[in-house]
Amino acid sequence: MSKKFVYLFSEGNASMRNLLGGKGAGLAEMTGLGLPVPRGFTITTEACNDYFDQGSKISEEIHAEIAEYVVKLEEITGKKFGSLENPLLVSVRSGARASMPGMMDTILNLGINDEVAEAIAKLTDNPRFAYDSYRRFVQMYSDVVMQVPKSEFEKHIDALKEEKGVKLDSELEVDDLKRLVSEFKKIYVDAIGKEFPTDPIEQLYGAIEAVFRSWMNERAIYYRRINDIPSSWGTAVNVQEMVFGNMGDKSGTGVAFTRNPATGENRLYGEYLLNAQGEDVVAGVRTPSPIDHLKDEMPEVYEEFKKDAETLEMHYHNMQDMEYTIENGKLFILQTRNGKRTAQAALKIAVDMVNEGKITTDEALMQVEPKQLDTLLHPYFDAADLKAHTPVGRGLPASPGAACGQIVFDQKTASAWAKDGKKVVLVRLETSAEDVEGMHVSEGILTARGGMTSHAAVVARGMGTTCVAGCADLIFHGEDEIVIGPATFHEGDWISLNGTTGEVYAGQIKTVPASIEGDFAKFMEWADARRRMKVMMNADVVADIKRGLELGAEGIGLVRTEHMFFETKRIRAIREMIIAKNTEERKAALAKVLPLHQENFEQIFEVMGELPVTIRYLDPPLHEFLPKTPELQQQIADDLGVPVQEIADSVARLHEQNPMMGWRGCRLAISYPEIAEMQTRAIIQAAVNVQKKTGKKVHAELMVPLVNIKKEFEFIYDIMKKTAEAVIAESGEPVHYTIGTCMETPRACLMAGQIAEKSEFFSYGTNDLTQLTFGFSRDDAGKFLNAYYDRGLLDADPFQSLDIEGAGELIEIGLKRGRAQRPDLKIGICGEQASNPNTIDFLDRIGFDYVSPSPFLVPMARLAEAQATIKNEK
Amino acid sequence: MSKKFVYLFSEGNASMRNLLGGKGAGLAEMTGLGLPVPRGFTITTEACNDYFDQGSKISEEIHAEIAEYVVKLEEITGKKFGSLENPLLVSVRSGARASMPGMMDTILNLGINDEVAEAIAKLTDNPRFAYDSYRRFVQMYSDVVMQVPKSEFEKHIDALKEEKGVKLDSELEVDDLKRLVSEFKKIYVDAIGKEFPTDPIEQLYGAIEAVFRSWMNERAIYYRRINDIPSSWGTAVNVQEMVFGNMGDKSGTGVAFTRNPATGENRLYGEYLLNAQGEDVVAGVRTPSPIDHLKDEMPEVYEEFKKDAETLEMHYHNMQDMEYTIENGKLFILQTRNGKRTAQAALKIAVDMVNEGKITTDEALMQVEPKQLDTLLHPYFDAADLKAHTPVGRGLPASPGAACGQIVFDQKTASAWAKDGKKVVLVRLETSAEDVEGMHVSEGILTARGGMTSHAAVVARGMGTTCVAGCADLIFHGEDEIVIGPATFHEGDWISLNGTTGEVYAGQIKTVPASIEGDFAKFMEWADARRRMKVMMNADVVADIKRGLELGAEGIGLVRTEHMFFETKRIRAIREMIIAKNTEERKAALAKVLPLHQENFEQIFEVMGELPVTIRYLDPPLHEFLPKTPELQQQIADDLGVPVQEIADSVARLHEQNPMMGWRGCRLAISYPEIAEMQTRAIIQAAVNVQKKTGKKVHAELMVPLVNIKKEFEFIYDIMKKTAEAVIAESGEPVHYTIGTCMETPRACLMAGQIAEKSEFFSYGTNDLTQLTFGFSRDDAGKFLNAYYDRGLLDADPFQSLDIEGAGELIEIGLKRGRAQRPDLKIGICGEQASNPNTIDFLDRIGFDYVSPSPFLVPMARLAEAQATIKNEK
Repeated sequence: MSKKFVYLFSEGNASMRNLLGGKGAGLAEMTGLGLPVPRGFTITTEACNDYFDQGSKISEEIHAEIAEYVVKLEEITGKKFGSLENPLLVSVRSGARASMPGMMDTILNLGINDEVAEAIAKLTDNPRFAYDSYRRFVQMYSDVVMQVPKSEFEKHIDALKEEKGVKLDSELEVDDLKRLVSEFKKIYVDAIGKEFPTDPIEQLYGAIEAVFRSWMNERAIYYRRINDIPSSWGTAVNVQEMVFGNMGDKSGTGVAFTRNPATGENRLYGEYLLNAQGEDVVAGVRTPSPIDHLKDEMPEVYEEFKKDAETLEMHYHNMQDMEYTIENGKLFILQTRNGKRTAQAALKIAVDMVNEGKITTDEALMQVEPKQLDTLLHPYFDAADLKAHTPVGRGLPASPGAACGQIVFDQKTASAWAKDGKKVVLVRLETSAEDVEGMHVSEGILTARGGMTSHAAVVARGMGTTCVAGCADLIFHGEDEIVIGPATFHEGDWISLNGTTGEVYAGQIKTVPASIEGDFAKFMEWADARRRMKVMMNADVVADIKRGLELGAEGIGLVRTEHMFFETKRIRAIREMIIAKNTEERKAALAKVLPLHQENFEQIFEVMGELPVTIRYLDPPLHEFLPKTPELQQQIADDLGVPVQEIADSVARLHEQNPMMGWRGCRLAISYPEIAEMQTRAIIQAAVNVQKKTGKKVHAELMVPLVNIKKEFEFIYDIMKKTAEAVIAESGEPVHYTIGTCMETPRACLMAGQIAEKSEFFSYGTNDLTQLTFGFSRDDAGKFLNAYYDRGLLDADPFQSLDIEGAGELIEIGLKRGRAQRPDLKIGICGEQASNPNTIDFLDRIGFDYVSPSPFLVPMARLAEAQATIKNEK
Repeated sequence: MSKKFVYLFSEGNASMRNLLGGKGAGLAEMTGLGLPVPRGFTITTEACNDYFDQGSKISEEIHAEIAEYVVKLEEITGKKFGSLENPLLVSVRSGARASMPGMMDTILNLGINDEVAEAIAKLTDNPRFAYDSYRRFVQMYSDVVMQVPKSEFEKHIDALKEEKGVKLDSELEVDDLKRLVSEFKKIYVDAIGKEFPTDPIEQLYGAIEAVFRSWMNERAIYYRRINDIPSSWGTAVNVQEMVFGNMGDKSGTGVAFTRNPATGENRLYGEYLLNAQGEDVVAGVRTPSPIDHLKDEMPEVYEEFKKDAETLEMHYHNMQDMEYTIENGKLFILQTRNGKRTAQAALKIAVDMVNEGKITTDEALMQVEPKQLDTLLHPYFDAADLKAHTPVGRGLPASPGAACGQIVFDQKTASAWAKDGKKVVLVRLETSAEDVEGMHVSEGILTARGGMTSHAAVVARGMGTTCVAGCADLIFHGEDEIVIGPATFHEGDWISLNGTTGEVYAGQIKTVPASIEGDFAKFMEWADARRRMKVMMNADVVADIKRGLELGAEGIGLVRTEHMFFETKRIRAIREMIIAKNTEERKAALAKVLPLHQENFEQIFEVMGELPVTIRYLDPPLHEFLPKTPELQQQIADDLGVPVQEIADSVARLHEQNPMMGWRGCRLAISYPEIAEMQTRAIIQAAVNVQKKTGKKVHAELMVPLVNIKKEFEFIYDIMKKTAEAVIAESGEPVHYTIGTCMETPRACLMAGQIAEKSEFFSYGTNDLTQLTFGFSRDDAGKFLNAYYDRGLLDADPFQSLDIEGAGELIEIGLKRGRAQRPDLKIGICGEQASNPNTIDFLDRIGFDYVSPSPFLVPMARLAEAQATIKNEK
């Protein structure tokens, strides 16, 4: 039996969302509920996929099936396309599985032509309505189906209104509208070179294809990428009998929410316009009235709508966003869907609906998008003030929030100005570990280069500092002037950054501080009670760690020890170590680092109490600790009292073609085991001291980075074990510690069984793993990934949302082989994808023990994991 | 039942090589054959592995088993350790599974002490013999077991000889030898701080442990790495009753080969020394006599030995390398093994033995090491002249052969001087594609940076040009002076390179040109008849291609199209393309490249006739085509008639942190599809033209590099297909072509099933795959891999010999998934490991169709695959 590609609304229901799209399933479900829904049919998402499989063509089979359903619709409605007695007009709308507002295109009044318009004018005795509908159709069809720019048409309307001396479209008269229709058709002919189609059937197939095509337009691709929606889902097409809000003053159209989507208040919320069609509400030319007014204007319609809204909310167990039309006093509901809402509203609605007994806590948890929680934790721009500004450029939304400050170009100035109480925004070509101090004191960070997982982005997210990264519009002219789009800036100039959207503004925009309100705590309690995986955090600075604990982190999944080395007093000793000519000199330099390093760990252990602290051993290539410019090299040479040539030689010796795959990670400790020895000593001695001081048992997990080979891991393992046991023996204080592996290479995943012979835990470093699985350098991928998105070759940034097919399979192989060797192997992730809901869902499914994102993403991960637990239980 | 760790020679045989080692298995087999072998026992390789597993300790169990066999040996021989009536003295020797000459250490005369020496003096009535044996033992034991430097002892011998006014050791008298024994023991005490051990059993365990330890000494690790021997094999230890060549003039010791190991001549070849022990022959203090003389001196012994030698050669089906000792006129054979031989000899022996009916052609094929063939194809240094030179430095043996020429530092000078008939050696910090023209005209290439798969190494091997890469001793002082170790060089100075060993010499050394002789062709015929996989070649220059065809290549497995772009006239157009500001400008620039590119392919297709030609589309990052220095940027700006800022901006825009994982491979064609279009047009038009001209059917295989994603491949596939079909349609000439994938990323291997939906062949690029599997940048890995070898963490360079466990598993996954989708999928390898015998064996086993090395490695690959076919049939 061949597949069915078209369904009448009366043939479907809410469970067929994947096939009929959200809108189609909603229309079918409402039809089933007996609500006043205009009749129609839905062409499935599978038809859309088939369309692209055929090389952007509707297959004959589907074409015929649609034709059959047109006849059915004509039969049900008693109307007929092109009929002058009872003409059928329809709307054609897209409807994907996930709600993608504004992404897809809609056509109203399809089926109209000169004869039909005239017939409608007569039948309704309302020529104004007939020609208003007609001109709308020509305009919409030209724009949506044939890409004739909307502005072409608007120009004509504006000119006509000026000519007539009127302000509103509704003030135009029938003849004006007729004139517009003929002018619009002329625009069409000029642009396309063909007459405007008069056959309703031809119009219909044109519109259906346009909906399919819109699935692959740039906005849609972008939206899917940002929201992790696979392009294979496709969109459905809904063909529905028109009802008219523009038939006169007893007609109208509007949108409404069952609760306030901004605040969550439990009260019908929305607006309507009389004598209008849908796009008028959206376009904002006329100001709609609040829905409360409908109570006075059409009390019966209002009551009916209120009842239907309640029915729908109860039915869907969620706040609904509805579109409705009133045609000559009769209510029609055109759409219902779960309503988008602000983070604040989402929390309030979820908690209220539980309190009202309308939903379970599991349903409440599923209602809130994890990403939304993020916005509760960061400042945002004052909406009114924001409206007065236009962005001068745009980069990647690397770390959310809003920031406003005076531009500084280096970390020294940043620190000095911040000390003077100034608000600063650090602007850099790109950042490196040397900039971390400056980043800490800045309101925001802006870089010209680097992607969502560049140094700037990762560190900024860790700090919860607003960051816009990889702003291609930003050009450095020398070291003290930058140009962003039309604007030129110097040190001290004010700049504002929106880290949630990536937009950059000249001047000052007011920001509103973040605030977490009452519902949050209760809601997160539900999430914690429900989730299986633990949520840790990536942090190494006490302030960040404390913040992460407040936000619910259950331990530290990643301490990057190298961050500790960049503080001024530590980096000197590290540099001595790097330029050391032999093991003795190196050990002498490391001996200077030891007490400082130990002090860092003491601070961390004190804050963390008995919670686990996972410490990654020194990871970056050593050249990161040495400056590249001759001036800075001279400074360091003076500081260390060695000839500058020695520094320059070290830099040259350490230079790497591909540092990401160079002398870093555990390769450093293989070359210089004394580094691992010193780090172990510092950690275990710190644990001893803190245990003695606080009486609490430190829980340290020592992690070896970039492991590939069983013997490589064991070589370092032996050094760590020996050193740790020696420190414990010296002190007489037993310390609980484990030794594990950071799984970052494809080979580590394949060799996991062997590595797990000694390794007590695996922490997947999915940034590096993603880089190596694809051969994508995260620092360079920005150059080419946009072309991938534009051409629909890649749905999402694999550094943001784990590439489940590729990197995911390697992770799963590693997990299975590791656990086969060591059934109680603890497995987690410390990569950037650790807070991504799709990633968490996958990791939950395959049996991970924990995820570890940066502190500000901990709430998001807690909720995402609660949702994953609920889903994966089924 | 517990494992058996010790075997009497009479308990073993040749098939137990893995357990007993080569030497032990040989001694056991000879014992079984009834040859005169001194009695003894072998401690197995498993005991060696156990020793390291126990943390360098002989377990109690093995200790006890050895003790038991000591008693057995005493019983069999009727001698006893420490006995003054009939003392047992033994030799202790290593013996690994594979012959590792000079890698392991030997101890003779073990069991001797003051009392035993005196007893032997009396029993043999030969005190000179007794004390000569004693002083040798003390010296050898101190050196081998306790690492007291040999030179310490030699100094004393030399001083004593000078004092006595004699020249030869044999001129020393008994008292002199006694004095040496006591002086030697003093040296031992001074160095070790303990008395020299007098208990034979203590001596024995010390010696056994020393043999085990020597498995992990630097030389052994290095040898294994170079020869692809896993460290897990371990070494056996042979403990054998001593027989004495130093008992007087009826005694002696020697080595012999059943055929001449240098020429292959079928005649007993070897030498001996009377009144001497083994190390005297090796040490070269006294000049041994050719074995022919033994016929006159001891005719019976000679005849017996000759008979035994023939027996052994017949028995082992291979030329034998034997050690023997004559004790008071009685012959003993101490060792037999397959003899090492020169490449010339190997071929001659193999062919002769087949002709003599002694071995099958399969056996002949297995006798020759594939690597040896390589040396037949390259010039080498005149041995006499070489002796007069000492290397000034050493780098990696990147491309074999010997070269001598005048130093040039840039490709321009190289070309100019070569045109004047000078022989030049190009010396660079590292090479890039820009240097290729200069490399072509040079005798040899020397670089300071880069590994075995660096640009210089890969290109040089492709050309068959001698290359020493990554010479850490080489330091550039500015641009016109280099220092290598003790020597300073300027442009025009003579230098000599040994690309087979990596050694660098100052001045001129005579070279002998390569010569392939008669046996080669016949032998390779046997190989070709036997092997399953095809052998293609990586080549893009007509001269190299012709050479590869002469050497037996059956097609081209990899044309690197970027190499074509570096020729002066082409690179200008390429640069125009890179700095193009939009698609139109880019297309205009590409239009200039097209005819030149097409001409390249016409030349290749003409040479290749109907053999397959696999063409990889543009692969390197575009910045490789632009110069880094302002001077060169200015030149190019002048040449192209654009402001230099435009060039500098392009360089900055294209700069990458990790170019290996950057904007390269098919990512270029995703961004700029017009590149793939131009390349397809050039290839197919060239095929059309050549077919029309020659009447032969071109067989083009178009390869998309660095594929990761099904859709990514299909996007480019569609462009290629469309373009190719258009050209074919225009010309009316059908062209056979296929479109496939270069498999270079872990993700490609995982997604192979999806990719194979459209891809008609897979060619594994194992350089990149190895880089990504490990996260090892081949350009940077030199910095840290030595530490891995030194610590025994990695057995072989994974860029030379495929990492079968890691990268190999990915390859196998890719193969299985690809073939599951498309059973006739053609699968090959074009990476650097394509001529490595271990790699070939693996690829043969999993079902590859072909390998493609550089032209000069084709014979090696043909033989290696013949061997793999034979092995894997079993």
